[in-house]
Amino acid sequence: MPDTLPTDSVGLVTEQQHHFDEPLTLACGRTLPEYDLTYETYGKLNSNASNALLICHALSGDHHAAGYHDMADKKPGWWETSIGPGKPFDTNRFFIVCPNNLGGCKGSSGPTTINPETGKTYGADFPIVTVPDWVESQRRLGKALGIETWAAVVGGSLGGMQALQWAIQYPDELRYSVIIAAAPKLSAQNIAFNEVARQAILTDPDFHEGHYLAHDTVPKRGLMLARMLGHITYLSDDAMHVKFGRELREGELNYQQVDQVNFQVESYLRYQGKNFVHRFDANTYVLMTKALDFFDPAKDYDDNLAKALAPIKAKCLLMSFTSDWRFSPARSKEIVKAMLHHDRDVSYVEIDAPHGHDAFLMPIPQYTTTLKAYMDRIETD
Amino acid sequence: MPDTLPTDSVGLVTEQQHHFDEPLTLACGRTLPEYDLTYETYGKLNSNASNALLICHALSGDHHAAGYHDMADKKPGWWETSIGPGKPFDTNRFFIVCPNNLGGCKGSSGPTTINPETGKTYGADFPIVTVPDWVESQRRLGKALGIETWAAVVGGSLGGMQALQWAIQYPDELRYSVIIAAAPKLSAQNIAFNEVARQAILTDPDFHEGHYLAHDTVPKRGLMLARMLGHITYLSDDAMHVKFGRELREGELNYQQVDQVNFQVESYLRYQGKNFVHRFDANTYVLMTKALDFFDPAKDYDDNLAKALAPIKAKCLLMSFTSDWRFSPARSKEIVKAMLHHDRDVSYVEIDAPHGHDAFLMPIPQYTTTLKAYMDRIETD
Repeated sequence: MPDTLPTDSVGLVTEQQHHFDEPLTLACGRTLPEYDLTYETYGKLNSNASNALLICHALSGDHHAAGYHDMADKKPGWWETSIGPGKPFDTNRFFIVCPNNLGGCKGSSGPTTINPETGKTYGADFPIVTVPDWVESQRRLGKALGIETWAAVVGGSLGGMQALQWAIQYPDELRYSVIIAAAPKLSAQNIAFNEVARQAILTDPDFHEGHYLAHDTVPKRGLMLARMLGHITYLSDDAMHVKFGRELREGELNYQQVDQVNFQVESYLRYQGKNFVHRFDANTYVLMTKALDFFDPAKDYDDNLAKALAPIKAKCLLMSFTSDWRFSPARSKEIVKAMLHHDRDVSYVEIDAPHGHDAFLMPIPQYTTTLKAYMDRIETD
Repeated sequence: MPDTLPTDSVGLVTEQQHHFDEPLTLACGRTLPEYDLTYETYGKLNSNASNALLICHALSGDHHAAGYHDMADKKPGWWETSIGPGKPFDTNRFFIVCPNNLGGCKGSSGPTTINPETGKTYGADFPIVTVPDWVESQRRLGKALGIETWAAVVGGSLGGMQALQWAIQYPDELRYSVIIAAAPKLSAQNIAFNEVARQAILTDPDFHEGHYLAHDTVPKRGLMLARMLGHITYLSDDAMHVKFGRELREGELNYQQVDQVNFQVESYLRYQGKNFVHRFDANTYVLMTKALDFFDPAKDYDDNLAKALAPIKAKCLLMSFTSDWRFSPARSKEIVKAMLHHDRDVSYVEIDAPHGHDAFLMPIPQYTTTLKAYMDRIETD
């Protein structure tokens, strides 16, 4: 337990919750009659509400993007590298809002919360949610906080897709969109990885068609496998090599038992997988992968991405990482190219980084410096 | 059912089996007191036994490399594209031997066969086998067939590792080694994929610590997941794009059920996964991934691959495919470089192909032509 928190941290933070009574009709056709969003804020909203940043989280993220909940916390929020006084998302200048998405498992309405219509946990009955649905709910949260226009909407990976969708869906309600390590839609390979992760969860005998909580269990094997697989796609082959190589756990290969850990990378994956089971919900994981699979703004425009992005008015920053093979630089460039087709104000930066997709969460000097320079030019009054 | 078989096929073939009474001590320290190898042969051994080719199979392969077992067979052997009259492994010239490896599940001694010491199915009691163990057993099979020296030992992927190991282990007993789409050892990422596949199998409640047959069941969920994951690594992202894109199975996205197939790629993977369960054994799958993980000829030479390859006398052909991200061209080049260090006779060809790792099984003109030209220069008398 630290006695003091780092001076460039937002420090101790408290999560908040907003209850929405106005029904929300989702892309799937179903309506949530009421719902909650759990969120955190950092920094102060200025008098004309012109300094608000919306941070959107990725697959396994949540609303706790920065700071500490408790002096005993071992780890700060997931984007501590970028959020705080003097950092790219500078809390001396910006009022930052980060909600847990609908369908999540960290407080916002989702599979682990109570369905007000039945009085029971939603479980598998929570509807499929999409990126446009999240934008809609985030917009309502903004309005509840007095924000009509975001200075910027920001996100990495699935969060970047939300930042992109915001610019399409409500072009007049954000001035900047910062889209990091994202893609205009998943590739067949991306979908394939999601499908294996989903099948791991759905075929776990403890899944009980998503009503595992009612059976007093969780599909821990399936969720563990999904997470292990996820981790492979978050790291580059090179990053894995540097991190683990073929280093042996015990010094010698174990030729006797097939379930024995031999290599450090096996140990790492098992640890990450088992750990995840304690902090994440399987139904939420499935829903998040569906939101990824279904994201495809060009779909209603004959697969013409330029047409789909035509409504955008926000200035956009796209960033990608050379070693990211989940959403490679080529995927970001598809978005840049489509934006340039309509002569939009778009900047693109490719960061030379060996870490793979995970790079967007890391303190990489070129990344941080570039991001900060861009954010610093956003006017806040 | 075809009335006739293709004229460039070896036609109808029959598998054979050889029983070995001489005990075989394995790298793991355990000894098989006796064992069987199931194998097929194509072509005719010449009088001085100088035209024998050994074909080594990969992870999920077997001894049925070419031809048909029956006029009703829907598919020929797994390397039909390369084995047959006039093909690269030309049965007009070569006598080809392809065994099912020890630990396999297609007839050779392995987890699904009877342990002569107990009278019961081996199941999980079958020992961990390694690439050097396979070389040893293949050598004995050769001798049983009257072959003292192979004209060439050939394989792709894990089969290529066996061809490499042959050249190291018995340098005087093969004249050529043809190593296709292989690597000198697995990367951390390769091991990571194997570990997820293994965990899928080992954590399946129907695995019963490998003794599932005694429980009258098979860990079909785990084996299905392992195979789905395997297929992702066999195809390039581009190949998946060409093959499936984001094409929808039903024309429209299904927003109602999370277990519904939406994209063709999901349907393909589920089909491949389910199908595999009927034709492969889970313990064998686990053993094969261990053999892959453990293959590392440089390990006993301070990770100096050149030193490990120093004994090689065979002329070697290395081939790789541009889009193979499982064992990329860079991995083949590591082997080539190490061979050149000792001025070995090595040829290297990189084939421009979009299919990913699976390319080594495909009828790609540049690949077939090059391979045939190389094989044609091998003297057979």
